Formats: sequence, C-alpha cells, structure tokens
Amino acid sequence: MDELYEKFITRIRQVSALNSVSGLLSWDQETYMPSKGGETRAEQLALLSSVSHEQFVSVEVGEMLESLAGPAVRGELSEEAAVNVREVKRSYDRKKKLPTKLVEELARTSSLSQQVWIKARKESDFQQFRPWLEKMVDLKKQAAELFGYEHDIYDALLDGYEQGMTVAQLDPMFAELQERTVPLVAAIVESGKKPDREALERNYPADRQKVLGVKIAKAMGFDFEAGRLDVSAHPFCSGLSPFDVRMTTRYNENEPLSSLYGVMHETGHGLYEQGLDPRHLGTPMGESISLGIHESQSRLWENLVGRCRAFWEFAFPLFRETFPDETAGLEVDTVHFATNEVTPSLIRVEADEVTYNLHIILRYQIERELLNGRVEVKDLPELWNSRMEELLGLTPPDDARGVMQDIHWSMGGIGYFPTYTLGNLYGAQIFEAARRALPELDTQIRRGVFLPLREWLRENVHLHGRRYQASEMVEKVSGEPAGSSAFLKYMEEKFSRLYGL
Amino acid sequence: MDELYEKFITRIRQVSALNSVSGLLSWDQETYMPSKGGETRAEQLALLSSVSHEQFVSVEVGEMLESLAGPAVRGELSEEAAVNVREVKRSYDRKKKLPTKLVEELARTSSLSQQVWIKARKESDFQQFRPWLEKMVDLKKQAAELFGYEHDIYDALLDGYEQGMTVAQLDPMFAELQERTVPLVAAIVESGKKPDREALERNYPADRQKVLGVKIAKAMGFDFEAGRLDVSAHPFCSGLSPFDVRMTTRYNENEPLSSLYGVMHETGHGLYEQGLDPRHLGTPMGESISLGIHESQSRLWENLVGRCRAFWEFAFPLFRETFPDETAGLEVDTVHFATNEVTPSLIRVEADEVTYNLHIILRYQIERELLNGRVEVKDLPELWNSRMEELLGLTPPDDARGVMQDIHWSMGGIGYFPTYTLGNLYGAQIFEAARRALPELDTQIRRGVFLPLREWLRENVHLHGRRYQASEMVEKVSGEPAGSSAFLKYMEEKFSRLYGL
Repeated sequence: MDELYEKFITRIRQVSALNSVSGLLSWDQETYMPSKGGETRAEQLALLSSVSHEQFVSVEVGEMLESLAGPAVRGELSEEAAVNVREVKRSYDRKKKLPTKLVEELARTSSLSQQVWIKARKESDFQQFRPWLEKMVDLKKQAAELFGYEHDIYDALLDGYEQGMTVAQLDPMFAELQERTVPLVAAIVESGKKPDREALERNYPADRQKVLGVKIAKAMGFDFEAGRLDVSAHPFCSGLSPFDVRMTTRYNENEPLSSLYGVMHETGHGLYEQGLDPRHLGTPMGESISLGIHESQSRLWENLVGRCRAFWEFAFPLFRETFPDETAGLEVDTVHFATNEVTPSLIRVEADEVTYNLHIILRYQIERELLNGRVEVKDLPELWNSRMEELLGLTPPDDARGVMQDIHWSMGGIGYFPTYTLGNLYGAQIFEAARRALPELDTQIRRGVFLPLREWLRENVHLHGRRYQASEMVEKVSGEPAGSSAFLKYMEEKFSRLYGL
Repeated sequence: MDELYEKFITRIRQVSALNSVSGLLSWDQETYMPSKGGETRAEQLALLSSVSHEQFVSVEVGEMLESLAGPAVRGELSEEAAVNVREVKRSYDRKKKLPTKLVEELARTSSLSQQVWIKARKESDFQQFRPWLEKMVDLKKQAAELFGYEHDIYDALLDGYEQGMTVAQLDPMFAELQERTVPLVAAIVESGKKPDREALERNYPADRQKVLGVKIAKAMGFDFEAGRLDVSAHPFCSGLSPFDVRMTTRYNENEPLSSLYGVMHETGHGLYEQGLDPRHLGTPMGESISLGIHESQSRLWENLVGRCRAFWEFAFPLFRETFPDETAGLEVDTVHFATNEVTPSLIRVEADEVTYNLHIILRYQIERELLNGRVEVKDLPELWNSRMEELLGLTPPDDARGVMQDIHWSMGGIGYFPTYTLGNLYGAQIFEAARRALPELDTQIRRGVFLPLREWLRENVHLHGRRYQASEMVEKVSGEPAGSSAFLKYMEEKFSRLYGL
C-alpha cells in the first residue's frame, strides 16, 4: 500500500509541477515576454495543459484512486495521505465527468470568446459579444448538467471555484448583506462627507511607489528571496511553489494609494502561497483551499489591516519619507479617510469596501437567472442596468462600463464572482479570531510589527493546505459557522464611526 | 503519406515546444528566479526533459520514421519534408543508442559533478573534482562506444555538438592554426606595442552601458518586439522561437567594452534565432545547424564587424554621446586598438581574437588523449600547465585558473570546445563571402547600416535551417571547402597591420 501511495503521489506531484510550469509561462507572458511571442506562448500553454490533463485523467490514476480510496486501504492511510487521496479523487471525479470533446470545445470557445470580448468592450458593442456569450452559457449549462447537482444547477459550477459551497448557503448570506449594505451606502451618501484628495492626486513617481510597496510587503513578512514583485497590466499573484511566488502590480502616478493597496492585496495572496507546507509541495495538503479562502487572505491584509487607523500610524511616516515634497501639508487623518471613501460607482474593480459586495450580488443574481433560464443573454444589458440602478443608484452610460466590464464570463467563469465576496466575509471572520488570539494586535500594527499576525495565519490557515473545506476551516478557526456577521459588524462599526452616522 | 507526415511533424513540434518551455525555465533561472526557487526549478526541468524524451524516443516515432524514411515513401516527400525526416531520424537513432540507465546516470552525474566543480574551483582543489571527472570521462567513453565511430572515438562525441565533423577534418585545420598563430603571438609580444587603456578603465555606469548596447543591437537589426536583453552572471542567448529570443549580458563598470562586445556576440546569436524560418517552427528546417555555425554568427558580428576600424567610425560618436565625461580625451584609434589588444592570458573567456584558438587547441588535444586513454584524469593539472607553457608561454598559478576554469567537462561536455574555434573559422569564411556579395559593406558598416549584412546572412544562412550540414553550408555560401584559410588571412592581415609587423 505504501508503495502504491508513493507511486500515486509521484504522479500527482508531476501533474502539479507541469501546472506550475504553466504558471511561470503565464507570469512571463504578462511581465517580460516580447510582444511578438504571444502566439507561440499560447501553443506552449495549450500543449502543457493537454499533457498535464492526460497525465491526470488517466486510466492509471483512476486505478490507483480506486485502490487507495477503497474500504480495504482507506483505514491504513495516514491522516495527511487520506486528505490527499480524498482531494485528488474529488478533482478526478469532477474532471472525468466531462467528455474530452466538451473540454476542448470549452477551451476553444473560451479563447476565442475572450478575444471577441476585448474588441466588443473596446467598441462597447454587446451585439458582437452576444453570440459568444450565448454559446458559452450553453456550454456551461451542458457542463453543469454533466457535473450534476442536488438542488440548483448553479451549485454545479460554483463548486468548481469554491468547493462545497451552494446557493442554499449563499442566498441568506447575500440577502442579509444586501439588506444591510444598501441603507449604509445611502446614509453615507446622505452625510455629504468627502475626503480632501488634493494632495493624493499630485504626481507620485512610479519608482518610489515601488520602493514603498516593497517596504510594506517586507514588513508584512513577504520573503523576497522566495518571490518577486513585477509590473503587469492586470495585477495578480502566482505561486509556483512556497519558494517562488510571483506578484505583480501597476503604477498610476496620480494615484499612489491604488498601487500601495494593490501590493498589499497581492502580498496577502503571496503570504498564503509562501505559507503553504513545503513538505507537501505538489499535493493537496500543500495547496490553497479555495478561491474564497485565497481572497480572504488578500482582503484581510488590504482592508482589515491596510485601511485601519493603526496601520496608517505606522505607514504615514514611511509615506512622508518616500514622498517628502509630494505629501507636503498632508495629514494622517486625511489619508486614512481617503482610503475609506465610500462612493457608489460603476466599475467593480474600483469599488470601495462597502459597495464592492453589491457589485458581486448583482452578478450572482444575473448568473443564477441565466442558468435557470429565467433570462436570456440578449436581455442582459437591460437587466444589468436596471439592477445597477436598484443596488447602486447608477445607470451605466454604455455596456463597456456595464455588462461587459469583466472578463470572467467570456472565459466561462460563471460561478466565480461569489468567491470575491466570500473572501471579504471569511477575511473578516478570520481577522476577528486573530484579534482575539493576539490581544496586542492593534499595538503591533501601529508599530509595523506584522509577524505575529502572519505567523498566526500561517499556523491556523496556510499550513493546513486542503485538509479542511473552506467553511469548515473558517468555523474551526473562529469557533462559529462561516457567515456574514463578522463582516457586517466590522463594516457597520467602522463606517458609522468614519462618517459620523 | 501526407497524413502520416502531418502526424509525425505534429509530434516533433510538440517535443520542440516542450524543449522551448525548458529554455524559458532556464532563462528565468538565470535572470529573475528568486534565490530559493532553485530546487523546485531543477525538478521542473528534470520532469520536462523526461516528458520530452519519452515523447521523442517512443515506439510511435520509431514506427513513423521507419515508414517515412523507407524507400517506398522517401521519394514522395517534398525536399523540406525530406530534410525534416532525415534530421529527426539522425537525432532519434543517436538517442536510441543509449540505454535509459546510462542517460539517467549521465544526467545525475552531470548535475552533481557541476556542483562539486563549483566548490572545487572556488577552493582551487583538483583532488575534490578528480573522482567526478574520472566518472564522467568513463561514462562518456561508454556513451561514445555505444554511439559508435569509424576511425576515432572522439568523433562519436564531437558529432553530438557538431554533426558530421571528425578529427580527420579538425586535425589539419587545428595544426595549421597553431602553426601560424604561435609565431604571430610571439611577434606581437615582441613588438612591445600596448594600447593606452586609461580612459577605458574609468567608471562607466551600467545603466548607460545598457542604453548603448541596446542601440547597437537595434542597429544590427535585432527586433526587440521579438526578444529581450537582460542581466545574468553568465551571458547567453536562448531562442524560444524566432518571435521570442532572450539574450543576457553582464556589466562591469570599469570595462565598458566587455559588455558592448558581449551584447554584440549575443546579438549575433540572436539574429540567427530571429532569422530562422517561422513556417518551420519546431522542426529541423526551422532550427540552427550546429554549435559551430551558431558561434560563427556571434563571432562574425562581435569580431569581424565589431572590431574593425569602420565599425568604430560609426560607434565612436555613439560611445562619446553616451559617456561624454567618461570618454574625455579618448580618440577613436585608441579605442579601436584597445579592442584588438593581443596578450597571452590564462583564461579562455577573456582571451583575444588571436590567442583564443590556442585555448581551444589545448582543450582539444587533452580531450583526445583522455578518450584514447593516453593520459589519465589524475595527470591533467600537470599536462594542462605544460601545454599552457608550450602554447601561450604562461603557467597558471593554480588549478582554478588552469585545468578547472571551464564548466564544460563537469557537465560531460567533452567534444564541445572545438565548436568555438569552428565558429571563428566559419565566421571568417562566411564574412569573406558576404564582403564579395556586398561591395559596399565597409561603407555601410562605417555608417551603421547593418541591414544589408543581416539580410544576406538571413537569406544565405538562417533561413535554411538544417537543410545543409555545417561544412556543406559554408562551402555553398563561400564557394570553397570549409577550412581555416579565410580566418588565417583575416587574422594575419589585420594584426600585422595593427602591430606594424
């Protein structure tokens, strides 16, 4: 049995190594690849993904899983080995459900549809994009039926991004979130309070923004001998292994805080990747749990740490020191308030901490209706705009700033959006638990001492790999079922105080 | 048959794509990889090489080759298809000759032996390295016997780096080269002429060295939308495809010419890679011929173009403009003479155009004696030092600057060194032909107009891929059998003139 398990784990590690190679190729594509290299890169990526797929969804892996997960052997496995078998079996069973033809069709449509989306968004022409989105929705429905579900077709897709999550759990969380966010936003708008952004819109040279970002990331505990920070058009973090984590950001010289929070966000992801257990490299025990938990780490550092008053007591002197002329006349309270400005806006990726979840709820509602067949793709622009009015009181001037703003649907990423809000909720609940466990946390943040928090996250979250499911882990860490109450409490307290409500 | 050929070429392209992925991984390792990423990177590279090897040396490829290279089909193939089948068959047959066990043993020994070499060289302790080199020589002898040869065991290894080359061809070329180089070096030393290097040893900031290098590379016709220039400890050029060519250099702030010539050298390699026919990407018709021909392109640009007087008429104003203060008082003749300084020295990679080949001849002689069993590894330091005295009139003060200076043997690269000198010889012969075809070449170089030369090289060398063998191609281009006479003529004329002999 030991021998069989070793053989099994070697194969799984190989598949994982191939995937991490793809990760490097994608990172290179976004950072250093010369512009003409794109076509060859696409072929390399397609080839690697097909080799990795072949090695994973193979007869051999199927047979090994059958033995290892069978009743005869299961009891003999160590706890960690059992986790690996369980999680590999889950991915394997899911992947096996789709016929190769559908997998290829999805890959091809996704690639072509993205290209159409780029052009259609540029021209704000939904009609160009519509047939592709129709095809994609149709393919994803087929896939969902093949994956199977108990209660709702949406669950079948959601499970691909956030294992074990269902609409039955999301619906009440999201409903409460909407119910309590909408009046809070209204009260904030009503208050008429606005930060003075003048000093923050001066010119902040990119090279010094980078120096500051690296300093903050280092203070947070990111190990630059096991990772990098580069520039790309769309910021991301890619963990090739705990020893090689690639983060990116972008610099807007008139918005110094945008890159600073971008770096803190990616560093949150990066610390999770660096915190995974290297002994389990390339196996589920050494992988992150889900997109939602990953996002909880980035949001926790970006928002719960990075936008609190104590953080700015540490960061403000650094900010002043890095930009002595640019920040002339600026006060710490002005910066702190500016980083917490709440304004309903059209674009998700630019949204503040309060309105952000309304953007997600909008997408979640529309996705569910699409899958259930209650709306058709052709009706999306209108539906989007009316929901936008309902939730945020705004009407997009065009579809580029409306229904076509995000890349996800063009890639077939239906069921993905909820993980962003789950990240906010999980992050707040985990942070509340960290605060209980580290009574000196505020003082530490004020002094720029972040290692106790990083270590606590590492021990309680990162090092466990995929031992627990997302909500199971949140409950274990916090002592309470995963839900929205920690986030709501945090949000209402903080913004009522800031806006004097 | 068309269908079979298509299937065959698809497989070959896949293997090639996997190898180009390894190329990117190696490039990243030398440029941007964080220091802790090394161990995982080694595993990724080993995995890719084993997947690529499995896909190539497979029963299927063997069967396809048998049909395609068989008499029934051969005549039906287009000329280009026939080249691809011929060249793939050659690599396949060669690779099939080694049992997997020996391949693995070679790979493992090479990796470990390199690490020992690094340490032993640092400590200048040959005894540490000796058992590894003994093992490596033994393994390479075994491999050579399995590859087989007609006349000399050395041919079996040489063929792995320079297809079709034999000691029967090398011996007379190298003998003549030695015979005519040794007295030339003596006469140069005798002349007592030395360049005034004072101005060239001032501080030349690296960032401006880079600006100059990029300008020169662009002038040579390197397409920076299809390639890059980065920094690494050991300069190299890696062509992932004609659309993605990665060059590196290093900057020594007290030696501005060292990086300039480094860049010109790598750009010569880079132009070859960018000049390959993209229609044949991933097949022998779209690959470089041999290491010797590759080196001919780098040497041609670095030495025959870059160290001639006409080049400095173009480059000197650029050099002055880039470093106005640093070059105060410097004359174009001083720079030109300094770039052609001939001094016997201990280290190959620092050697000038004249003495360089003596370093290669030394290694070639020793390698042949090792393989023929006329000397043993334990005698190498002494043999090295006495040959060094004989050929260059110098005795290394230690083995680090003697027998252990190069990495090649630790990696099993026995038979590799001659390709460097072949590059010099081929380069001179090709350049002589280019000069005949382009009567305005000197004027063009003087004006920094390099595109006619680049285009001529592209049409006559690059675009043919592996259609011809190295010496066949040189003969086709120049109208004369490949040999040393063009190089000797060039060398003797130029250096007699410069040193007033």
